[in-house]
Amino acid sequence: MGTERLAIIGGDAAGMSAASAARRRDPELEVVAFERGLYTSYSACGIPYYVAGLVEGADRLISRSPEDHRANGIDVRTRCEVVAIDLGARRLTVRAACGEESEEPFDQLVVATGAEAVRPPFPGADAIEAAATVGAAERLRAALERGGASAVVVGAGYIGLEMAEAFVDRGLRVTMIEQAPQVMATLDADMATHVQDAAEARGVRVVLGTAVEEIVLDDNGAPVGVRTADETFDADHVVVGVGSKPLVGLAEDAGLEIGDSGALRVDDHQRCPGHDGVFAAGDCAESHHRVLDRPVNIQLGTHANKQGRIAGVNATGGDDRFPGVIGTAVSKICRYEVGRTGISEHEAADAGIEVVSATIKDRTRAGYYPGAGPIWVKLVAEPGSGRLLGGQIVGTEGAAKRIDVLATAVWMGLPAQELALLDLSYAPPFSGVYDPLLIAARAVAKLV
Amino acid sequence: MGTERLAIIGGDAAGMSAASAARRRDPELEVVAFERGLYTSYSACGIPYYVAGLVEGADRLISRSPEDHRANGIDVRTRCEVVAIDLGARRLTVRAACGEESEEPFDQLVVATGAEAVRPPFPGADAIEAAATVGAAERLRAALERGGASAVVVGAGYIGLEMAEAFVDRGLRVTMIEQAPQVMATLDADMATHVQDAAEARGVRVVLGTAVEEIVLDDNGAPVGVRTADETFDADHVVVGVGSKPLVGLAEDAGLEIGDSGALRVDDHQRCPGHDGVFAAGDCAESHHRVLDRPVNIQLGTHANKQGRIAGVNATGGDDRFPGVIGTAVSKICRYEVGRTGISEHEAADAGIEVVSATIKDRTRAGYYPGAGPIWVKLVAEPGSGRLLGGQIVGTEGAAKRIDVLATAVWMGLPAQELALLDLSYAPPFSGVYDPLLIAARAVAKLV
Repeated sequence: MGTERLAIIGGDAAGMSAASAARRRDPELEVVAFERGLYTSYSACGIPYYVAGLVEGADRLISRSPEDHRANGIDVRTRCEVVAIDLGARRLTVRAACGEESEEPFDQLVVATGAEAVRPPFPGADAIEAAATVGAAERLRAALERGGASAVVVGAGYIGLEMAEAFVDRGLRVTMIEQAPQVMATLDADMATHVQDAAEARGVRVVLGTAVEEIVLDDNGAPVGVRTADETFDADHVVVGVGSKPLVGLAEDAGLEIGDSGALRVDDHQRCPGHDGVFAAGDCAESHHRVLDRPVNIQLGTHANKQGRIAGVNATGGDDRFPGVIGTAVSKICRYEVGRTGISEHEAADAGIEVVSATIKDRTRAGYYPGAGPIWVKLVAEPGSGRLLGGQIVGTEGAAKRIDVLATAVWMGLPAQELALLDLSYAPPFSGVYDPLLIAARAVAKLV
Repeated sequence: MGTERLAIIGGDAAGMSAASAARRRDPELEVVAFERGLYTSYSACGIPYYVAGLVEGADRLISRSPEDHRANGIDVRTRCEVVAIDLGARRLTVRAACGEESEEPFDQLVVATGAEAVRPPFPGADAIEAAATVGAAERLRAALERGGASAVVVGAGYIGLEMAEAFVDRGLRVTMIEQAPQVMATLDADMATHVQDAAEARGVRVVLGTAVEEIVLDDNGAPVGVRTADETFDADHVVVGVGSKPLVGLAEDAGLEIGDSGALRVDDHQRCPGHDGVFAAGDCAESHHRVLDRPVNIQLGTHANKQGRIAGVNATGGDDRFPGVIGTAVSKICRYEVGRTGISEHEAADAGIEVVSATIKDRTRAGYYPGAGPIWVKLVAEPGSGRLLGGQIVGTEGAAKRIDVLATAVWMGLPAQELALLDLSYAPPFSGVYDPLLIAARAVAKLV
């Protein structure tokens, strides 16, 4: 037996993190990554800012190009789609852009196939490309630069909200249509309402509790409107952001196990159970949720990078453990920053977990310091113990990154009554003398 | 025996927090607070912003006036100085502004006498009023509004730095003279150098390792220059910020115990040991430092408010505990935000604590997102366990409040290797895909 070979399916965050970690640890190892697109290691999270024009070239979203990776000794094959995995023979079937197929052997395998946008069932939806890749973002921006006066965003999750803002930045009249009765389902309704206020203040028309029935196309197949039961909205441009699902068909066909979340089951070393030397990481894989104590599929670049790195370490004989997630996320929506961690009140209810919660409103800076704005903090805690189970923050500049304090507290199981007296920092440019988190902790501690 | 009477010495954060907490808990109690100045519950932390002109009226620094407190049923006596405490007879001697003295009985007592600026020994220093009270700030601002082209700030702690920036904001030529070889002694030298850079970039001339020998006065006793061994600096205005010491003479004379820090000794209920019903809180009192595991005197509004409230609760039969401090602080210095928590490398060395440390430089936002700036993070950890013992952060907007994540981690004893994989938030407006804290944790984890 000659040199060992690590194959990686997928050239974005998780895949290339795995490749890079393996490369660093074992200079002898052959590392080959197959990516069906043109790009590697790009920031899908940056796409709304590129569409808005805040970021000039799409190449700025790429943190490492195929050439960069090749210079590090990783054999990157772009425009090469893996179409079959034979786990017994340890062999991939790879189809190049020209259509030619080849067999590629491996010793270790990292599956990092990512996720794809959910395509809604209504007529016309097939005509709308998901703005989830660098290429798609370039096509959308080119279309915007060709003109148009109106846009409709279907779905009011954080990507939909970011895209709505990007369209407003470009001077379009924007309508956002959401089937649920609130924006941002990851927040509780009372907190989501502030985000809706921010979008509306920025000029976005927000239509809630309304199903789209059709994307109306012209004779060339280009969108001209979006129809609901009540109304048809003009739409020179349409973006659909109604969620995305892990891309697991290939792995499932090969016999890898799918969890209840619909993503690939992995253990805490990113190993696919029952298949030695086979790993999965990133948007296609499950993560253990430490508060819910069950596997979940949360598609975020931060998890993809960490899990990819761990898969790369463990594929080369290492023993790294991914400790799980607690659902932390942050976003900037118009004038507000939004953060959440742990479980929300409605997630707790869905999971049958009894909680107490409190919401406070305060200011981001001392009242007399220029630029102070509103901040709302909602905390969710376990009755009796007071252990923090989750937090949500909405507010102006400086508000959202405070979520990391709550993430650390939830991670460690800090009781709210202890957080209320914790030695957090204070100076007038950053908060009143009691940080909003301390005030919120005190409020929820009274209820436990 | 009639109504009980709680007397409070000092009408700022700690004293009035105690008064308010006691008032809320016991509507029958007589609560009287003696304040030698004119104001209650003001923000000394806001003074530099008032001097700069960022905050218009000095009254904006007052969160609750004597009238506000009286409306809440607290008998506030301003311009009344307590000149003696008789713990045996449970009686205060109070001198009113007119010079008249009276005896005031108490059942419970809260000592919240605060701190006073250290007056340096060199000639001319007595002519400079410390800008530590609302009245002094008003006089300084009036002097600035009368004119002048130059200012010297003696001392490069955070107050000195904030005042230097305030003078630059007002168009003055500013020199800052510091005896130590670095600015901001609460930071390690490698981190303090970035703060110095920011001050210099803003136009402040920073003179380190240099002792002031004299403040040169004109015939009217007004400052005209500051002399060191090498040079005399023009100074139409002079501010001295070389530290402050707890005001404990009155309490010491009465027989209350002084700790090694020079502040009043208290237990974790803010009780003065050996004296039932006598409490101390705020800048005049010690706090337990959880990392150093010894009493310290850290003069900050955040501790004063918490300790005052606890003293007020316990003075009215409650059982609240102050859990101690870990040295968290934050400040905005010119273009940089600065935060620190736990112990620094040099504090560890001074205390004979063996540590490892690592410093990383990163960006405050994703590289492609507009407005990204530098951030430095230094972490100090326990060898072996990796337990975080301290952190320091310097960087542009969005940098410093991250210190609260480290404060929570230090408070809970989180190991750096666990922080490195903690589920902190990520979005391009707030960080790269690995938050700078995760990168720093990984760097120090490699050394433990």
